[in-house]
Amino acid sequence: MLNYNFKIAEVIEKIKELKAKKIALQFPEGLKIYSTSVANEIESKTNSKVIILGDACYGACDVSDQDMMNLVDLIVHFGHTPLPLNYKIPIIFVEAYSLINIEDSMKKSLKILEGYNNIGLVTTTQHLNVLEKMKTILEKKGKKVFLKKGIGTKEGQVLGCNFSAIKDLPVEAYLYVGSGNFHPLGIKLFTKKPVIIADPYMGDVRSIDEFSDKILRVRFAKIVKAGEANNFGVIVSSKEGQFRLELAYHLKEMIQNSGRKAVIIMMNSITPALLMAYRDLDAFVITACPRIAIDDASMYEKPLITPQELEIVLNKRDWSNYEMDEIKYDENKNIINSI
Amino acid sequence: MLNYNFKIAEVIEKIKELKAKKIALQFPEGLKIYSTSVANEIESKTNSKVIILGDACYGACDVSDQDMMNLVDLIVHFGHTPLPLNYKIPIIFVEAYSLINIEDSMKKSLKILEGYNNIGLVTTTQHLNVLEKMKTILEKKGKKVFLKKGIGTKEGQVLGCNFSAIKDLPVEAYLYVGSGNFHPLGIKLFTKKPVIIADPYMGDVRSIDEFSDKILRVRFAKIVKAGEANNFGVIVSSKEGQFRLELAYHLKEMIQNSGRKAVIIMMNSITPALLMAYRDLDAFVITACPRIAIDDASMYEKPLITPQELEIVLNKRDWSNYEMDEIKYDENKNIINSI
Repeated sequence: MLNYNFKIAEVIEKIKELKAKKIALQFPEGLKIYSTSVANEIESKTNSKVIILGDACYGACDVSDQDMMNLVDLIVHFGHTPLPLNYKIPIIFVEAYSLINIEDSMKKSLKILEGYNNIGLVTTTQHLNVLEKMKTILEKKGKKVFLKKGIGTKEGQVLGCNFSAIKDLPVEAYLYVGSGNFHPLGIKLFTKKPVIIADPYMGDVRSIDEFSDKILRVRFAKIVKAGEANNFGVIVSSKEGQFRLELAYHLKEMIQNSGRKAVIIMMNSITPALLMAYRDLDAFVITACPRIAIDDASMYEKPLITPQELEIVLNKRDWSNYEMDEIKYDENKNIINSI
Repeated sequence: MLNYNFKIAEVIEKIKELKAKKIALQFPEGLKIYSTSVANEIESKTNSKVIILGDACYGACDVSDQDMMNLVDLIVHFGHTPLPLNYKIPIIFVEAYSLINIEDSMKKSLKILEGYNNIGLVTTTQHLNVLEKMKTILEKKGKKVFLKKGIGTKEGQVLGCNFSAIKDLPVEAYLYVGSGNFHPLGIKLFTKKPVIIADPYMGDVRSIDEFSDKILRVRFAKIVKAGEANNFGVIVSSKEGQFRLELAYHLKEMIQNSGRKAVIIMMNSITPALLMAYRDLDAFVITACPRIAIDDASMYEKPLITPQELEIVLNKRDWSNYEMDEIKYDENKNIINSI
């Protein structure tokens, strides 16, 4: 429990208030190590039966509300904010704030940010509680900080597949506060502007540019390789928050109209082992999580591309108009099923 | 399409009869390589849209009828016979008979069977179409052949988790016709009688005894290791045909009554990667597919045991009374949720 605040007291209060007797706990991969102690604590302090959901979980796109509909009264989902989905049973989203100090790395970042006055501030769920503090640190140094709410995200928050909170901000550069290259890479590919990372875990400050250039070269190679493909698999995820079957049908038709073949394959989680079975397919288009094709490319023998990359393959989009794939929602909480 | 009969003409006729416009095809892992050509053929000969179901599938316990309820009119499930489950949408089960010749290996087996007069004949789904032929070969040599229908299986058919078709047959030995050690190992552990394999794929005839002894030694080691565990994970599969949550609750209580700790973890497919997250658990009890603990033991760092093996760990069953775990059904097509 050392590194995150799981708000157990509040969760227990809510369980009692809802009189929930059967509860499922869901944790993303990085937080699953805490799941057994959270389960034991909730069981010891309530009269409820607790089930830990063990399937892979990488976002709120993954909430197993449909599967658990007749099995539990409540899902407690840790580590993500809710998406604009119509969840079918009561769900508590616990953001699981990191207890790490962000000040040192942010202060280091000020040096690299010297040339920029208008800064887009971006972070992830586990640091949203210190967003105001981040803003203050920048403003004290005379920066103008730009933030907005996204569709499906909070102020300053991005997901791997949702950059609506930073779309069209009038800034010269973005400061990302958090760990890893995953989110800043997305910000870079989405905005094409300088992205500086203040990483409180590594304690360092760095630019994503070099990494992003490398990834773009890989993308180019995958697009060229997929251009040679005659048989495509168009992959749809059955996860509610990644479910874009109509988009998949559209892409299949687009492939077939170009004189090539395509089949639709539906699966929950996509893994190299599962795709190995399709020996006669040459390339895969992923309508599921937009990050699978980009971030897991090296794990797959055959090229995996995004819908927008397929458009480049089929000469319907110019490489100079390269765009990140996103999972977007309309005002009725439905996933937009087109590019 | 070379090695199996997928009965495409019959499937297409049925699709037209049902006026199915949206169809999902489901193949077990070993037959997935044929899925794209079957999909293309069905699409080209009907007006239906076809989706290949890409999740791992090892049996009719895995039929994705619940997930596909509002998405397709029909599931065509290849390679397995139906289980006594209440499927929620129309499903065609296509047994996908192997076209391999079984005579040569069966004739070879007669030599090893010389000392036995009463033989239990056993095979798997893909050879059920030549069961009569198998019987005749044995009878011509003067053997008395014993066969019966199981609960959830056809005459002479076993599954990895269902041996009801051979339970209590008055035989001296079993002849298993088919590939691999997986099914004969189950038959051996279930019946404790001699099991001879006539393997038409390898072209050889062999006894399972040595392999089975090795597996039993591994089981003994796992049981000893699990005996040292203080923290157990009791795994439940969300697959409809493996869903034994009540059994899991019962085992959890049994573990807790012995002064140890237990949590319930629910997942669809169980993999080593998914279990790696639970660093503070010492052992896992699998109420899902009974074969995971036994056949995949070497893939897992920590001991995985069956419910019956847990009873041995907790001194509620004697090692001499070692029993295979099975997934059994009652007369109302409900899975029996106890040992």
